Amino acid sequence: MIARIDAERLDAADPLNPFRERFALPEGLVYLDGNSLGALPKGAVARVAAAVTREWGEGLVRSWTDAGWVDLPRRVGDRIARLVGARPGEVVCTDSTSVNVFKVLSAALALRPGRLTIVSEEGNFPTDLYVAEGLAELLARGHRLHLVAKGELLSALDTDTAVLLLTHVDYRTGERHDLPAVTRAAHEAGALVVWDLAHTAGAMPVELDAAGADFAVGCGYKYLCGGPGAPAFLYVAARHQEVFRQPLSGWFGHAAPFAFEPGYRPAPGISRALSGTPPILSMTALDAALDVILEADLSLVREKSEKLTSFFVEAVEQECGAAVRLVSPRDPVRRGSQVSFAYPDGYAVIQALVARGVVGDFRVPDVLRFGFAPLYVRFVDTWDAARALAEVLSSHAHERPEFRRRLAVT
Amino acid sequence: MIARIDAERLDAADPLNPFRERFALPEGLVYLDGNSLGALPKGAVARVAAAVTREWGEGLVRSWTDAGWVDLPRRVGDRIARLVGARPGEVVCTDSTSVNVFKVLSAALALRPGRLTIVSEEGNFPTDLYVAEGLAELLARGHRLHLVAKGELLSALDTDTAVLLLTHVDYRTGERHDLPAVTRAAHEAGALVVWDLAHTAGAMPVELDAAGADFAVGCGYKYLCGGPGAPAFLYVAARHQEVFRQPLSGWFGHAAPFAFEPGYRPAPGISRALSGTPPILSMTALDAALDVILEADLSLVREKSEKLTSFFVEAVEQECGAAVRLVSPRDPVRRGSQVSFAYPDGYAVIQALVARGVVGDFRVPDVLRFGFAPLYVRFVDTWDAARALAEVLSSHAHERPEFRRRLAVT
Repeated sequence: MIARIDAERLDAADPLNPFRERFALPEGLVYLDGNSLGALPKGAVARVAAAVTREWGEGLVRSWTDAGWVDLPRRVGDRIARLVGARPGEVVCTDSTSVNVFKVLSAALALRPGRLTIVSEEGNFPTDLYVAEGLAELLARGHRLHLVAKGELLSALDTDTAVLLLTHVDYRTGERHDLPAVTRAAHEAGALVVWDLAHTAGAMPVELDAAGADFAVGCGYKYLCGGPGAPAFLYVAARHQEVFRQPLSGWFGHAAPFAFEPGYRPAPGISRALSGTPPILSMTALDAALDVILEADLSLVREKSEKLTSFFVEAVEQECGAAVRLVSPRDPVRRGSQVSFAYPDGYAVIQALVARGVVGDFRVPDVLRFGFAPLYVRFVDTWDAARALAEVLSSHAHERPEFRRRLAVT
Repeated sequence: MIARIDAERLDAADPLNPFRERFALPEGLVYLDGNSLGALPKGAVARVAAAVTREWGEGLVRSWTDAGWVDLPRRVGDRIARLVGARPGEVVCTDSTSVNVFKVLSAALALRPGRLTIVSEEGNFPTDLYVAEGLAELLARGHRLHLVAKGELLSALDTDTAVLLLTHVDYRTGERHDLPAVTRAAHEAGALVVWDLAHTAGAMPVELDAAGADFAVGCGYKYLCGGPGAPAFLYVAARHQEVFRQPLSGWFGHAAPFAFEPGYRPAPGISRALSGTPPILSMTALDAALDVILEADLSLVREKSEKLTSFFVEAVEQECGAAVRLVSPRDPVRRGSQVSFAYPDGYAVIQALVARGVVGDFRVPDVLRFGFAPLYVRFVDTWDAARALAEVLSSHAHERPEFRRRLAVT
């Protein structure tokens, strides 16, 4: 049997515990939805305010150079590179994850001209699939999106597979792919891999270069805590950069954007992945968030993440019994920084929890999803969430009519 | 002969004069670059701060519904619609101008399947041309970008023209197309038109619906004052919305984004133009800016704009004589809210002006560009800028070595 005192002891021994103070979390709220929207780093408040009043208000157009706005996508990209095992010049911060999937997927298809299949997973995050569908339809050259179950991915790879498009950590179950092994298998089949690191970056180490990865994208507003709709990032392995072309060839990706030449000449390196003018205010918040994220040792972050999720699984199973069913892998090594349980009336349960100050998320059809951002989630939070869940279920609080409708955003 | 006193009298009689107080402009600065980056509306400071601390920090993921983030792209779009002569549901705020050009251009080409030519103007803003080039290359179906001089545009339209891609107001010369007449001519040739309203929206009225326009895009950070890299906007005429498809089919453009369906079903109406998660902080600044912009009567804005630019032309020609050559149309009706002069060493002249607190912009090869945002530029600013220019030229201040290099962003 575990109890709240065990959580308190784990918090007291947690080397990352001081990081929580760097985030502005509402008093009394148990926030287990940092995999949807990361908490606000306190330092971002002053940084965004300065970007508004000093850089924009006083510096005006001069801030493109004087405040370094023009290099912000590369600077932020280089900082994110440190979190995903990439070298400087392999990552850039730009656009949304969806738009970046379009860029790297079209680039990857162009590198495999004879092959027409994009293999992905049935449960992959929908926007990646939608964008692949949009691209295939636009190309109208017979590309098809082949969706298979997780266990059949590797056997689905064949000589027609151009690209394997996968999300490293499943947004619903939290199951984590073996990125190096899958990359290797895809390469052996002659395919390229596009990794979506939305639920990876900032939550655990990942070594893109060491794994021989090709392309990756990721989200700025989950574990990177860059704020709502923060710009996303995009990785292109150094070896592909000379030949990498992407069709959203806006002026920020031009070799000489301010020469106003009539023809497009892609910038050398990762800069050619840029398109239009970047949203500086949103990107500044992400840059400020990285000040905190980069201070933490990622191996400690991962270690705490495994402990947090394991403690939560144990607490929920002890307090709720068989009412809920674990859908995340039981082995912590095989999951990301989240834990999901199935419950038939899951939607209403999440609403009832939110009403009690425990914020998790619901995912169709029946998934209670709880994310554990190791920099600001405490072990007592996991205990309190497990207890709240047990209370909701035992009191049938979720059966009240007010818990029937809500929107959710991952 | 005109003098500063005339400018003072014009300011005193200017019904828009009180709007200047709504913007945070540095003391003593003459800012004539609002067509590159619009000034900071004072109201945006508190609005962005509230979005950071209250909506993000306290509301966290709940703000997608509670703070209305999820509808912000449509809400801001509907507000911009009022500035461009569109109905609610025809405009959405999203992504960058470059990315939006890609969306509407691919949608337009799909509506003209038998035609392979995109006609545009030699001097069109490069990013529009780069994106058209990127799209044509990606499609690999023989589309070609045909660039012609402004005077030959209409005669270049033929039965192979799918789309006419034009910027309403030329970013260098300020020359303004007759949007209704050009749209009509393109339609007579069986082509569709994509209008880039980057230098239009917020500076003058434009009536997209009345002109029978098809598609348009525009910039959030020039005359709309939405801040550096503010999200752009995109217009699709109601009659095209049922058939309009765009390939950047991310989850925010899905009919049921939170149902997480594996297949893409475009949302009804303009929402299908959305792609990924929108950058809320940057979009909030734009929303706050629109509070000010929408208070002004656009016909008064245009009237003042014509007077400001005419006064500036007169002042410069009087004070500088033949040293500079007007490249903008002399007839105010034919130009946007900017005035450009040619000068062989224009780059250094702009630097010398900036050093004196007069911010204009340089555009290759020899263009001194001055933008007049009617809501915060005064007639005395135009006079002072003309005098500063005359002083720089007569004292040869621009020949100093420190004025040799700088980046510029339009």
